[in-house]
Amino acid sequence: MNRRLRLGMVGGGQGAFIGAVHRLAARLDDCYELVAGALSSDPARAAASASDLRLDPARSYGDYREMARAEAARDDGIDVVAIVTPNHLHAAVATAFLEAGIHVICDKPLAISLAEGEAMAALARRKQRLFALTYTYSGYPMVRHARELVANGELGDLRYIQVEYLQDWLAEPVESTGNKQAGWRTDPALAGPAGCLGDIGTHAYHLACFVTGLTPSELAAETHTFVPGRQVDDHVQAMLRYPNGARGLLVASQIASGEENALNLRVHGTRASLRFSQESPNELWFTPQGGETTRLTRGRVEGAAAAHATRVPAGHPEGYLEAFAQLYRDAALQITAQQTNTPPPSESLALTTVDDGVAGLRFIDAVLASQAGGNAWIKL
Amino acid sequence: MNRRLRLGMVGGGQGAFIGAVHRLAARLDDCYELVAGALSSDPARAAASASDLRLDPARSYGDYREMARAEAARDDGIDVVAIVTPNHLHAAVATAFLEAGIHVICDKPLAISLAEGEAMAALARRKQRLFALTYTYSGYPMVRHARELVANGELGDLRYIQVEYLQDWLAEPVESTGNKQAGWRTDPALAGPAGCLGDIGTHAYHLACFVTGLTPSELAAETHTFVPGRQVDDHVQAMLRYPNGARGLLVASQIASGEENALNLRVHGTRASLRFSQESPNELWFTPQGGETTRLTRGRVEGAAAAHATRVPAGHPEGYLEAFAQLYRDAALQITAQQTNTPPPSESLALTTVDDGVAGLRFIDAVLASQAGGNAWIKL
Amino acid sequence: MNRRLRLGMVGGGQGAFIGAVHRLAARLDDCYELVAGALSSDPARAAASASDLRLDPARSYGDYREMARAEAARDDGIDVVAIVTPNHLHAAVATAFLEAGIHVICDKPLAISLAEGEAMAALARRKQRLFALTYTYSGYPMVRHARELVANGELGDLRYIQVEYLQDWLAEPVESTGNKQAGWRTDPALAGPAGCLGDIGTHAYHLACFVTGLTPSELAAETHTFVPGRQVDDHVQAMLRYPNGARGLLVASQIASGEENALNLRVHGTRASLRFSQESPNELWFTPQGGETTRLTRGRVEGAAAAHATRVPAGHPEGYLEAFAQLYRDAALQITAQQTNTPPPSESLALTTVDDGVAGLRFIDAVLASQAGGNAWIKL
Amino acid sequence: MNRRLRLGMVGGGQGAFIGAVHRLAARLDDCYELVAGALSSDPARAAASASDLRLDPARSYGDYREMARAEAARDDGIDVVAIVTPNHLHAAVATAFLEAGIHVICDKPLAISLAEGEAMAALARRKQRLFALTYTYSGYPMVRHARELVANGELGDLRYIQVEYLQDWLAEPVESTGNKQAGWRTDPALAGPAGCLGDIGTHAYHLACFVTGLTPSELAAETHTFVPGRQVDDHVQAMLRYPNGARGLLVASQIASGEENALNLRVHGTRASLRFSQESPNELWFTPQGGETTRLTRGRVEGAAAAHATRVPAGHPEGYLEAFAQLYRDAALQITAQQTNTPPPSESLALTTVDDGVAGLRFIDAVLASQAGGNAWIKL
Repeated sequence: MNRRLRLGMVGGGQGAFIGAVHRLAARLDDCYELVAGALSSDPARAAASASDLRLDPARSYGDYREMARAEAARDDGIDVVAIVTPNHLHAAVATAFLEAGIHVICDKPLAISLAEGEAMAALARRKQRLFALTYTYSGYPMVRHARELVANGELGDLRYIQVEYLQDWLAEPVESTGNKQAGWRTDPALAGPAGCLGDIGTHAYHLACFVTGLTPSELAAETHTFVPGRQVDDHVQAMLRYPNGARGLLVASQIASGEENALNLRVHGTRASLRFSQESPNELWFTPQGGETTRLTRGRVEGAAAAHATRVPAGHPEGYLEAFAQLYRDAALQITAQQTNTPPPSESLALTTVDDGVAGLRFIDAVLASQAGGNAWIKL
Repeated sequence: MNRRLRLGMVGGGQGAFIGAVHRLAARLDDCYELVAGALSSDPARAAASASDLRLDPARSYGDYREMARAEAARDDGIDVVAIVTPNHLHAAVATAFLEAGIHVICDKPLAISLAEGEAMAALARRKQRLFALTYTYSGYPMVRHARELVANGELGDLRYIQVEYLQDWLAEPVESTGNKQAGWRTDPALAGPAGCLGDIGTHAYHLACFVTGLTPSELAAETHTFVPGRQVDDHVQAMLRYPNGARGLLVASQIASGEENALNLRVHGTRASLRFSQESPNELWFTPQGGETTRLTRGRVEGAAAAHATRVPAGHPEGYLEAFAQLYRDAALQITAQQTNTPPPSESLALTTVDDGVAGLRFIDAVLASQAGGNAWIKL
Repeated sequence: MNRRLRLGMVGGGQGAFIGAVHRLAARLDDCYELVAGALSSDPARAAASASDLRLDPARSYGDYREMARAEAARDDGIDVVAIVTPNHLHAAVATAFLEAGIHVICDKPLAISLAEGEAMAALARRKQRLFALTYTYSGYPMVRHARELVANGELGDLRYIQVEYLQDWLAEPVESTGNKQAGWRTDPALAGPAGCLGDIGTHAYHLACFVTGLTPSELAAETHTFVPGRQVDDHVQAMLRYPNGARGLLVASQIASGEENALNLRVHGTRASLRFSQESPNELWFTPQGGETTRLTRGRVEGAAAAHATRVPAGHPEGYLEAFAQLYRDAALQITAQQTNTPPPSESLALTTVDDGVAGLRFIDAVLASQAGGNAWIKL
Repeated sequence: MNRRLRLGMVGGGQGAFIGAVHRLAARLDDCYELVAGALSSDPARAAASASDLRLDPARSYGDYREMARAEAARDDGIDVVAIVTPNHLHAAVATAFLEAGIHVICDKPLAISLAEGEAMAALARRKQRLFALTYTYSGYPMVRHARELVANGELGDLRYIQVEYLQDWLAEPVESTGNKQAGWRTDPALAGPAGCLGDIGTHAYHLACFVTGLTPSELAAETHTFVPGRQVDDHVQAMLRYPNGARGLLVASQIASGEENALNLRVHGTRASLRFSQESPNELWFTPQGGETTRLTRGRVEGAAAAHATRVPAGHPEGYLEAFAQLYRDAALQITAQQTNTPPPSESLALTTVDDGVAGLRFIDAVLASQAGGNAWIKL
């Protein structure tokens, strides 16, 4: 993988949070070179942001459509674009770049409607382009290892799956006091109809699906808005049923006082159980039925999945940025493989894609339908 | 409190588990003297058990009705009876002793039907006798402290309540291989129609109610039996709504592979949150909204509720038996107060009673009704 | 073991701490009946304390010598005496009861000089009486299990042993503000020349010896007094060498701000290591060389040593009082065995005795000699 | 800081560990561009490594002296060199680049003798060049915060300092079975006379000094070699005395079975204590005297020192690479400030330098002197 891939970015100008994270992630493993951007819809901010990032001014675009066209026309045009705009623009931007034959790495959620999402998935398939979706937490080595343990049957038949994602930063109406991150996330026009549900509920849902390899068949859910005046939900909880008979609970809350970023998963099977907490991502707790708990650690545990996603030895903690970088690294491995007509390393196929995004949108739709129907059971 | 109360016991003969725990609990704080018993329905076992416990043979009874009559007639008759039979006998035994004017300490669940439970509550009120119900976990100092924090408004208005009680000892069909504890608990004739729901679901429900001071107004629940051939549920989960708008989740499972006795509670309010895990009962985690988590510890934390339930200094762990003993001590304090026409210490009023038992039976009924009605929402 | 042993107590009157703990411990497993006492050197307090404890006034003695004589003369005299006076009286009291042929359970430290201690050990041997010494922490099931793991070779050859015992309650000069517990512990006339060293340093030392089965051959130590005006040390640290080449560190401190009762042990061998923390006594962490850590738990772990010291199932925490009670239970098993000319259960032989006390006094002497000699290396 | 600094590297060719870590660290915050290298003393490996890293072949040097000369002569020559060779070469390489007027970032330990180290410190001062030394663990936000807490007096006067650094990867003679990392570290010709002492003992020593702001005045130490045939120590322990009367313990071991990278610090002062564990670097435990413990977290805790070293919000874990990158970022801030004649951000001055390296060499010398002198007390 000796050539760095040429990366463009849409969104992520000055003041943005997740754009900077994407750039860190792209840089960490040295697989990408950021060469173009449409960093802001505000031209002055776009230009200033491009200068900060040392972009060639000629490749700092005021409009993402222009960028897609121009980059597709260059011999040294970008290989892949990172989309880090607010949610409501994901579909349009991704469409423009896919149509131009450019690979896509998109922040989640994929889109603000299931129809949009399905159209993108179809387009990506038709254009044979990679469409990576950054479900960050799937990049953790111990999450990859958990998935491998389940896939290898170490847990037996799964019976109970519990996932929770708790934050407290929206416990008060901070969107009305100038918090930019809160502002767009609680505005249905920018974030879609799902608030907490779309922002972190989908992460929780994805993590459970990713690790277990199971998709629920039915759910009964409730969304709720605790903060007066807020236009979207800030809490969601659901009961889940799985095709194999397993049961599950999911809760995501952004009003969970005192919580930072508590994404926690537990999975119980007939043979064993496991627990993972995102805030302590270098460990995974594994307990055989009737037995004692072992703390599995990144770097020490055996298995190709974790090894593939690990940079430094056991006892040297890796974190969120490394997990994010793993998605970029897996995308680079897949894109390079396509460009060189070679098979990608099989471990890189754990990368989350537009299909995971569609599943997330389907989950959102089901929750909203359950809520609209008196919290009734809905087939997924 | 210089006279030890005279204690009788029904059930708890050789081979029983919870009877021995009750006796340890009664002994710990030296408030009781075990003087009489109907320890087994099997006369030989009853006699042998009485001998083990050094009871006067004249006060080892073959029948609880006879015991109630005989003890009530003695000048030195028992003050209080501990009922540790299988669930289906609780009501009949308690009724016999209440009618005889004898105070009752009963293992949970109170009864196998709500009607039975309500009748007992009414009888206890009419006879003006204490009817303590051993919701053991309410005896932990840090649970008492959590309740005090909530009552004092330290958490603000409650928003999200999550309680889970996970065990793994019924993950396999051990009732069919001679496990006596499993046997009666999974036999509807002895344990009632609720399996896991009645055995530990009620503990989870009670803990959440006890700490928050809130009773849910509605629930949607699902019970499930994972182990083939089992006649009662071994897993239950529910979504809860509270009168003040709070939301909750409850799960109790006896097939949660790898879990010992994981009764965990978290409560989030507008001002702060708290977490308690029964397996680490000497600590309570408290986090203000937006702030840092503090580990409150038994013996070091301030507050009358925890101090009342504490025997040894901070850093000297207390456990399950001490929590159980606390219920016995509180019962002794209340009985002695009644006997001496003095007010009991106010902290002893935290003792759980027949009314908590009725609430538990109401919860069981609601869950079963929800299950029968397609897991619909049911008013409590 | 159907007869309760008749127990007497010297010390432990109103206001005492450890006497009440001994009584709780004696009561828990129902092997003892407290029937006699010389509870205080102050006659009024002795009588009032005896009344609180419902002793026959005829068996409440004003003087321990009188008690030893009188009880030895009775047909129903005490089997065993618990000595819970300040340290400087242990030797005289124990001597009186041993001479009278009465078994002894003595709080630690054994005595205030090695000579006294050795004399008692010799006397106990000569009189063939049990002399139990309450090194409480050796009664924890997981400490017993740790010892069994080492003895079974699970750790291989031991290489590094680290023990720490940290408290903060003497970080300020509380002895000068009326704290009774602090008062006698910091008065060399009552506690002996070793302060923190004798009070908790000996516990740390014993725990390391008990678990590893090793006694250091040499040490270099330093004692220090941080609190101005204090007459004894409040901090001690030492480097240790063992006969097999292992190295060790020991620290005990009563000025360790923020610590409650942090007695922590780690042992590293060629094959594996283990860690134990007294404040979480239901678990033991075991890690094979190069491998992953497993949390062994009381009630779930296999092994006769832990099972012998366990009362309730896994996940139902036991604590300090149960550990203390274990020593009483083991003493009862040994005394009863002697009385009935039967071998005691082999697991009861883990009980700590006067010989452990002598080893502790030898440790104190070595530390004081090292300190006096410029913190030089001293042979033990 | 809009220009990336031009970075060269000496050492770190194919197969090396720490060189890759330095490159990741340099890349993360986008302050550096790697443009030159003398990556291996083996010319073929040097060239291949340079190609892997996409260096201009003209700037891939076979010899570090040539590189220093050539780069100093270029208009676009490197601003700074990263030295990641085995220890015995640090001094010669650093000298060559300092003499050429090039800033230095050097892996630790600084050198293999105190004299060498002091000469380098003097040279750096004379040439007015930055000489950063990568004591990685000082780059963690919570370590920076701990230091700030102590400096602000939040702990009061320090009394007891305990630091341990435990690993297990040298518990067996892996250097004789081809482990390259073990090979040079246990070869006195390459690593110097100190094994574990130099490799990780110095990290432990530095962490304690960095956080407390105190340097011990005296120590008594013991080194030991557990693995037969090994030429350097694999275990070191020491008692420490500080100028203010504080006492300390230090242990570093590479034969501590089961340990990954357990660098743990506790500091007790008159007002409060703190605890830090490198394996959980996003948290710091703070306990006031007599009070309850609070978990301070990266991203949520207040204070300029932690904020300066933080990239992502609370609950999004950072790790070892971010800590390493912080040193690179602080070096870039200081170099850029010098180049632009502006004061560097004050928080960047926490960067560890050649002076910390000299202190570490002084510690090594004192330990070796104590060991040679029968483990006597040595003034530092």
